[in-house]
Amino acid sequence: MAEKLENLQITWRPHFKTHQSAEIGHWYRDYGVKAITVSSPDMASYFAKNGWVNITIAFPATPLTTPRINSLAQKLNSLRIIVNNPVTAQYLTKHLSNPVEFYIEIDAGFGRTGLKAEYLDKLNEIISISKKSRYLQFYGFYLHDGRTYQVQGRENVRNVMIPVYEKLNKLSDEFKEAKISVGDTPSSSLLDSFPGIDELSPGNNIFFDLMQVAIGSCQPEDIAIAVQCPVAEVKPESGACVLHGGAVHFSKERIDWNGNEIYGMASSPDKNSFGNLQQGNYLKSLSQEHGCMVLEKPGTLDTITPGDRMTVFPVHSCLTANLYSHYITPDGNRIEKRILS
Amino acid sequence: MAEKLENLQITWRPHFKTHQSAEIGHWYRDYGVKAITVSSPDMASYFAKNGWVNITIAFPATPLTTPRINSLAQKLNSLRIIVNNPVTAQYLTKHLSNPVEFYIEIDAGFGRTGLKAEYLDKLNEIISISKKSRYLQFYGFYLHDGRTYQVQGRENVRNVMIPVYEKLNKLSDEFKEAKISVGDTPSSSLLDSFPGIDELSPGNNIFFDLMQVAIGSCQPEDIAIAVQCPVAEVKPESGACVLHGGAVHFSKERIDWNGNEIYGMASSPDKNSFGNLQQGNYLKSLSQEHGCMVLEKPGTLDTITPGDRMTVFPVHSCLTANLYSHYITPDGNRIEKRILS
Repeated sequence: MAEKLENLQITWRPHFKTHQSAEIGHWYRDYGVKAITVSSPDMASYFAKNGWVNITIAFPATPLTTPRINSLAQKLNSLRIIVNNPVTAQYLTKHLSNPVEFYIEIDAGFGRTGLKAEYLDKLNEIISISKKSRYLQFYGFYLHDGRTYQVQGRENVRNVMIPVYEKLNKLSDEFKEAKISVGDTPSSSLLDSFPGIDELSPGNNIFFDLMQVAIGSCQPEDIAIAVQCPVAEVKPESGACVLHGGAVHFSKERIDWNGNEIYGMASSPDKNSFGNLQQGNYLKSLSQEHGCMVLEKPGTLDTITPGDRMTVFPVHSCLTANLYSHYITPDGNRIEKRILS
Repeated sequence: MAEKLENLQITWRPHFKTHQSAEIGHWYRDYGVKAITVSSPDMASYFAKNGWVNITIAFPATPLTTPRINSLAQKLNSLRIIVNNPVTAQYLTKHLSNPVEFYIEIDAGFGRTGLKAEYLDKLNEIISISKKSRYLQFYGFYLHDGRTYQVQGRENVRNVMIPVYEKLNKLSDEFKEAKISVGDTPSSSLLDSFPGIDELSPGNNIFFDLMQVAIGSCQPEDIAIAVQCPVAEVKPESGACVLHGGAVHFSKERIDWNGNEIYGMASSPDKNSFGNLQQGNYLKSLSQEHGCMVLEKPGTLDTITPGDRMTVFPVHSCLTANLYSHYITPDGNRIEKRILS
């Protein structure tokens, strides 16, 4: 990612919501990263305490977040936020006490947050409000298109993104000073060209997960996070085992995998990779602490016994990592991370 | 619950996995509770540190948990565990260093963990192994029948449980010394008679949630937990708003509610209750930090604005509470809870 974006002269501003770890965050510095993206004021505070001075909070600001934005803006060299409506823009204009840059988020079709690129009047209204402000400065447009999570393979991801880049480039023609920032792991990982884009902020690619394998963003051997679960019970009569690995260990994210709805899949790590998938050995259901793992891979059921450990890939690494206070590396080192407040 | 079970002379041994809070746990003492149920050795350690000396870990023990079982057994007056297979029984027989009582879990049809009540040979095999042990002592049978979560209303819950009680009573005839422990919130809340049962261990009824409302275990005004979410964006064109309330705030548990798959529902608290449900205002989808709330309740869309707060009931309070380090009461008091390690 670092090499590709350097060659393309695009700024890499990685999203740290996936790992939420000061130590892992530090690894990015070796690749020239000086500015980061997070998803909440709390997460911004955590990374601010850990040496980061250029932070984007990529979740829409509201009047309620203003005190924390002021507090962060005082400490940081550069704080960028997202402002998607005139109510919030007006409020910030009145209540900011330090310079803050903002993006307006563009909704190119995903339908979650942001304004349509065609709503020029609304975009101009927000920018006009900010021009009356001493501290609120328009920086550009931000876009996360979750539709790249709904397709599979490079061509389909490209087909989602080409019209998106066209819309964003039209906006650039209209708002000459605006920078364009885009962030999602499928397009960042799979595409080699990001026409007109100034900055990319993927996050999930630090770990990847089964969802990204299903999309085609990575290979199984690229997945760098797993949950090691004790086998509590083996049930030959139902071709399954029960793991101590439930919703509090994985989250309840699920995907369709070859026609089965799964919550995780077993893998056999070796010295070179975590990623030798045990196709057929998948988490079929989760309760709070229990994970029911179907064992359809030939040979598993005969060899497994209570007290064994299974290495299980999560469907969505961001939500799984969020449930822990630390990571353990294959060498046994403990890496601390942010815990929920 | 306290009054009902006292009248029936059934021991109330509440499950603390829902609230995971020393302070909330303490409230139970006023109702005569002296022994509790938890779902992991980690959770047992937390409550042991906070003054509880009689604890059941209601998740199957494995050889891997033995060191922590030994450590807990040394500190507690009484530790009970679940042993469902000969491998674990043999291992514990060799490696326990303090007295520990165990239940064998019975699977009456739910299909998660435990042995069928008809497998007398297997039950006897485990008990025989324990008889050779200095420390491992058979206590009785434990059952959590999750099928009560798959039906609605008192009659249907009773119809699930009547054949279960019959099976357990047959076991009592066979194993005269065995005590019978049953735990699930729907049957504990809805039924008034638990024939042959010595102990009940519901947990979720400390808070209840939308799932329990859907089952009929409680009324909306009984729900005692909610997430207060800032409104980030209002989208009149799609009849929705976006909350700062996502998968890291609610978990991704979902239920069918009048034909819609929902992840949470808004409510209007007043002085008497949290539970004035805003029918039609429900969480339709969650990403990590975003919650997309459909606003079909007439009047909501016209009055809501960014920076408002919405009170939102979770689908599954156990998984939602698990995501926080503390609770805030309506009076503004902070109640600490266990955080994940």
